[in-house]
Amino acid sequence: MAYLNDNYLKLKAGYLFPEISRRVKAFCEANPEAAKRLIRCGIGDWTEPLPAAAIAAMHRAVDEMAARETFKGYGPEQGYEWLRAAIAQNDFPAARGCDVAADEIFVSDGTKCDTGNILDILGHKNKIAISNPVYPVYVDTNVMAGHTGEANEAGAYAKLVYLPCTPRNGFIPEPPKRHVDVIYLCSPNNPTGAAATREQLAAWVNYALAHKALILFDAAYEAYITDPALPHSIYEIPGARECAIEFRSCSKNGGFTGVRCAFTVVPKSLRAATRSGELHPLHPLWLRRMTTKFNGVSYIVQRGAEALYSPEGKAQVRAFIEHYLGNAKVLREGAQNAGFKVFGGVNAPYLWVRTPKGVTSWQAFDKILGDANVVITPGSGFGSKGEGYLRISAFNSRANAEEVARRLPELKWG
Amino acid sequence: MAYLNDNYLKLKAGYLFPEISRRVKAFCEANPEAAKRLIRCGIGDWTEPLPAAAIAAMHRAVDEMAARETFKGYGPEQGYEWLRAAIAQNDFPAARGCDVAADEIFVSDGTKCDTGNILDILGHKNKIAISNPVYPVYVDTNVMAGHTGEANEAGAYAKLVYLPCTPRNGFIPEPPKRHVDVIYLCSPNNPTGAAATREQLAAWVNYALAHKALILFDAAYEAYITDPALPHSIYEIPGARECAIEFRSCSKNGGFTGVRCAFTVVPKSLRAATRSGELHPLHPLWLRRMTTKFNGVSYIVQRGAEALYSPEGKAQVRAFIEHYLGNAKVLREGAQNAGFKVFGGVNAPYLWVRTPKGVTSWQAFDKILGDANVVITPGSGFGSKGEGYLRISAFNSRANAEEVARRLPELKWG
Repeated sequence: MAYLNDNYLKLKAGYLFPEISRRVKAFCEANPEAAKRLIRCGIGDWTEPLPAAAIAAMHRAVDEMAARETFKGYGPEQGYEWLRAAIAQNDFPAARGCDVAADEIFVSDGTKCDTGNILDILGHKNKIAISNPVYPVYVDTNVMAGHTGEANEAGAYAKLVYLPCTPRNGFIPEPPKRHVDVIYLCSPNNPTGAAATREQLAAWVNYALAHKALILFDAAYEAYITDPALPHSIYEIPGARECAIEFRSCSKNGGFTGVRCAFTVVPKSLRAATRSGELHPLHPLWLRRMTTKFNGVSYIVQRGAEALYSPEGKAQVRAFIEHYLGNAKVLREGAQNAGFKVFGGVNAPYLWVRTPKGVTSWQAFDKILGDANVVITPGSGFGSKGEGYLRISAFNSRANAEEVARRLPELKWG
Repeated sequence: MAYLNDNYLKLKAGYLFPEISRRVKAFCEANPEAAKRLIRCGIGDWTEPLPAAAIAAMHRAVDEMAARETFKGYGPEQGYEWLRAAIAQNDFPAARGCDVAADEIFVSDGTKCDTGNILDILGHKNKIAISNPVYPVYVDTNVMAGHTGEANEAGAYAKLVYLPCTPRNGFIPEPPKRHVDVIYLCSPNNPTGAAATREQLAAWVNYALAHKALILFDAAYEAYITDPALPHSIYEIPGARECAIEFRSCSKNGGFTGVRCAFTVVPKSLRAATRSGELHPLHPLWLRRMTTKFNGVSYIVQRGAEALYSPEGKAQVRAFIEHYLGNAKVLREGAQNAGFKVFGGVNAPYLWVRTPKGVTSWQAFDKILGDANVVITPGSGFGSKGEGYLRISAFNSRANAEEVARRLPELKWG
């Protein structure tokens, strides 16, 4: 009798975004006229075209595949050397204190995939900390791996350590008093739009070194940092090479949400313990994982990603990022004009907005959908501490951002 | 203290192909003249250009990404509906007894990935059977998942059930007398080039139904079947929808080894047991796994894959397959002229060749590399029952295949 993984049956119904889709679909079917003016500020998906440098590079790569002499079959599972070198040089500059070698970078098809897959190389005894609110994938992949108990009525899983993110700590969790082994940090943060300061990251690195803990640092939104004092990589903090894995993506830094390219840094100096307490480097485990269970990112896509690091590519990406940050500014002003208390949206493409007093996240979702015909994301979908908040995504056209900024103040909250 | 997954430390050094690369590199450095005439028949990698229909489709898709109006961001994690529909219609024809719906097909970036990732949704109590010789990924991913004990000196892992493939059973394992819960089958087979008959597959389906077992059926090489009596899909066998998952790939059926697209079929009628013995469908588990830990295959790549199912695409793919099968015929004749006993190479792109008496697989590898300057794959790399065999890949130019066929008979085995 074949056995399934029972842990999957602990998962609470549906990921957040399918439920949003369901409500939006029902609303549009019932209100075809309102549906015509619907604006989506829900999911954080790129809306502009791909940078022209990536387009040109992918056309060239497709042409290479059309001739026997330049055809590319299996590539290195970890990614081509030229892409890993471009990443090391551009994303981890020594001038900012980083020291990341090309062979510590593993090119993959997504940060979502990697933040889930990383659990493959970790043991089952780890005490795991996540923030609340949190990107749901961190939680769900730990449930699937059997690292949690059942969920309670509020949706919190037993055995996980939840670190509250509130206005009091600027939505960046502090290291806990208790011991944990693995910590997920996301900065700039999805969903709250907060970005960790150097001091906040240093506190985490010090905690991790003291506790021999591992930080899983998701920096998928680093390109949106505008404050020059904020770190872009955890490797800007001394000691991070001994305690942190960093995840990066071309999705939000290059428009690759539908093209698929990301990368993960596993420093060679990073170690974890065997069951008997012996320390062992994690790099060879991740290398083995990737060479055994993955076959590399499409050659065509890797050439597109490489082009993001060319001088033209960098300038094009920068212009798109500024476009989205400009949207964020427009949306911030609109939400403030509407009387909302607004966080985020300065060093991140997300606004984290307090609902009016006594209005839940889903009530606000329904009202904003029904009256303003705007789709946002209810904060409670990211965890109990997200209740009473909304996430507004700045991924949109400027015209749409401006229209949303006009509509929000027209809402009557009764 | 962060803990690692100790199971990784059980893995025996290196995957087969890195060791081959090492020996080839050392030989070429020591023998620069011989290196110039080196011909690689080792790894099973496509050598010809991509089908023109796929090239054209990918150029169009890249252009779509260049304009705001046609840009594609996140797609459905399971793959676009148009690709899944094309697959269902073309690869699982009702005329051959198949009944596979589009929403039972999950598009992914590789069969190697999926045959590893499928373990995510299975429990840890399964008794797992693999053939010997075997594609190493089936074994290694089970070691990583903790489903085995340590390896013995012959490289066999405790707790796995090894099913010998020998000339006696035509290199297709028979169902064992004992009970197993999960069975990996690969047909047409890598490495032996054997293809299961309808009767052989029916025996496995009957075994699986009787034992409530699960068959993981890897059909990555189905396009190479030339015998019209042989099944292309396990779903041609009545009852398979209740006991089998099938893996397919565009790598060997369309030249996508460097482009990356594959798919996996999980029938909705397929069930497995919870720890307490309750049966539950696997389809929702795999759906949840893919939507949580995967973000879909590149839009550009999916358009390329779709083009393989167009009338032109099908004709182009067919011509390439015939090219490689033509190579296999040339290589078979060459190996036979050299006095080798040869299996496979008729319904598969691999030949499985007996070494001369008393010569091990690696000894033959070294001799063929040193004297004929041809790279093959030592059969023992696929398991103990592969000792005394060589795998010769037919993925090459015709000129190279003919040259190898000329060189093999010149070898003196003394």
